[in-house]
Amino acid sequence: MTVLVFLDPSRPAGRLADASAAQLLVTDQGVIRGDGVFESMLYTAGAVRKLDAHLSRLRGSAASCDLDLPGEQSWRAAIATAVARYDQERTADPEDPDEAVVKLIATRGPEDQPHGTAWVTVSPAPESGRRQRTEGVAVVLLDRGYDSSLAERAPWLLQGAKTLSYAVNMAALRHAHTLGAEDVIFTSSDGRVLEGPTSTVLLATRVNGVKQLVTPMVETGILPGTTQGAIFAAAEAAGWTLGYGPLEPADLFDADAVWLVSSLRLLAPVTSIDGTPISRDRALGTELAALLEAVG
Amino acid sequence: MTVLVFLDPSRPAGRLADASAAQLLVTDQGVIRGDGVFESMLYTAGAVRKLDAHLSRLRGSAASCDLDLPGEQSWRAAIATAVARYDQERTADPEDPDEAVVKLIATRGPEDQPHGTAWVTVSPAPESGRRQRTEGVAVVLLDRGYDSSLAERAPWLLQGAKTLSYAVNMAALRHAHTLGAEDVIFTSSDGRVLEGPTSTVLLATRVNGVKQLVTPMVETGILPGTTQGAIFAAAEAAGWTLGYGPLEPADLFDADAVWLVSSLRLLAPVTSIDGTPISRDRALGTELAALLEAVG
Repeated sequence: MTVLVFLDPSRPAGRLADASAAQLLVTDQGVIRGDGVFESMLYTAGAVRKLDAHLSRLRGSAASCDLDLPGEQSWRAAIATAVARYDQERTADPEDPDEAVVKLIATRGPEDQPHGTAWVTVSPAPESGRRQRTEGVAVVLLDRGYDSSLAERAPWLLQGAKTLSYAVNMAALRHAHTLGAEDVIFTSSDGRVLEGPTSTVLLATRVNGVKQLVTPMVETGILPGTTQGAIFAAAEAAGWTLGYGPLEPADLFDADAVWLVSSLRLLAPVTSIDGTPISRDRALGTELAALLEAVG
Repeated sequence: MTVLVFLDPSRPAGRLADASAAQLLVTDQGVIRGDGVFESMLYTAGAVRKLDAHLSRLRGSAASCDLDLPGEQSWRAAIATAVARYDQERTADPEDPDEAVVKLIATRGPEDQPHGTAWVTVSPAPESGRRQRTEGVAVVLLDRGYDSSLAERAPWLLQGAKTLSYAVNMAALRHAHTLGAEDVIFTSSDGRVLEGPTSTVLLATRVNGVKQLVTPMVETGILPGTTQGAIFAAAEAAGWTLGYGPLEPADLFDADAVWLVSSLRLLAPVTSIDGTPISRDRALGTELAALLEAVG
């Protein structure tokens, strides 16, 4: 069951539409060129998590692509309409887990039209996210091909933007599956740890009793992680120390725990890298999950 | 005016549809992840140019993406249906130039459906292609970020595949426009000449009276150019010698002529690189255009 709401200047609350019916032109540049931006958010317990951070990143992605976005109030109104409808329809099946994914998508629209296309969907969150949270994920390291200093000098590569052009991310996940793994940690051509195809990498280490949390620095051409940001803020308030890479694969093996974090999975513990099991300090994961839960 | 024909197992000749009406689900993975492949072909004087080469490259792109494609006969039938309808509708406006673009698109389809989505469109070719053929294009060199030996060892980067994930190509063109240029020649991180965002690079040099044609080697992670292939075959038959890179930017300045070649533009002479005018031997271009025209 997917609820669909288009952003529509003539309908301030958004326009509900049938997600099981055709809704897009084949000439939309989002379709024919992956030319658009998106966000995926977790909707649970009546709240969309980290909405401000996602709207902010969507604006940043659109700016990188010179893409005009509808105003923030239009997004908020459409999201409210969509989740309200989702809640109505959901009562029909109380067996559904209380986790949904809210997607925001904005494309450049058809070439012969002045405006882009923008919509919100709400649908049940994939089961894989909940499973990975508890069972963890086996990952492989795959070369992302770019060196870690490229992003700032080559803005046309859109490295910090979350665009609809995700074919390489999907191909990397398929490649991991052929290797018997479930997910990927990308490395740069100069050997830095970057990010997952749909996640941020997080490391925790206990040093003389102090808990330290480290993530690759965003200047290496990775997406700024909204979940990583929320965890960092909560962990700092709880007395953890924070750090930012550069990180190398050896750092992953040396850490007491490594996670792939994302809006839908939250914290997914990495259980092995390239077939080698790694340390998994469950107490650290439990504490971070509680901190993240508390900030919503 | 755009003619649209969906490939449909229940309709061997394809299913005509209204391109001005919504036709795609918002959940199609071609839309939300740029997860699909495409080809663009020139239709002129009653013939689709280089159809076999384009169908072959489409198959190669799909294989790189583990994407199931409809059979070749389904594509041929849908294309025939589409261009026949285009010709019917076109007679209403004899002022249209006799050049159309035939696009083939195949996506992975919605996640909850077993089959992808595939369609053919025919629409008037953009005027820019004809203009660039005669006036030429000013280009800038932009770093593509990958080193030229990466493609073979990192197949998940889909470098030889023509996927719908074209956001970076479009961003590079926009970046060129901000620099006062019209197009781009990508270079690799190790300084090799690669390709344009929507074209292949071709160089010609007269050496002791022998005409030589050179293009970057496909192993550097570029798309195999169907137009480059047709020109090479015709030129070789006409006595030219052929060569394949590695090429460096200096080779572009040393050549007697440089073109961006693609299915819609055919041969577009490069007039300047990063603001510096380059040699433009018009006789070479005229000869190659005639050779290409002759092979259809």
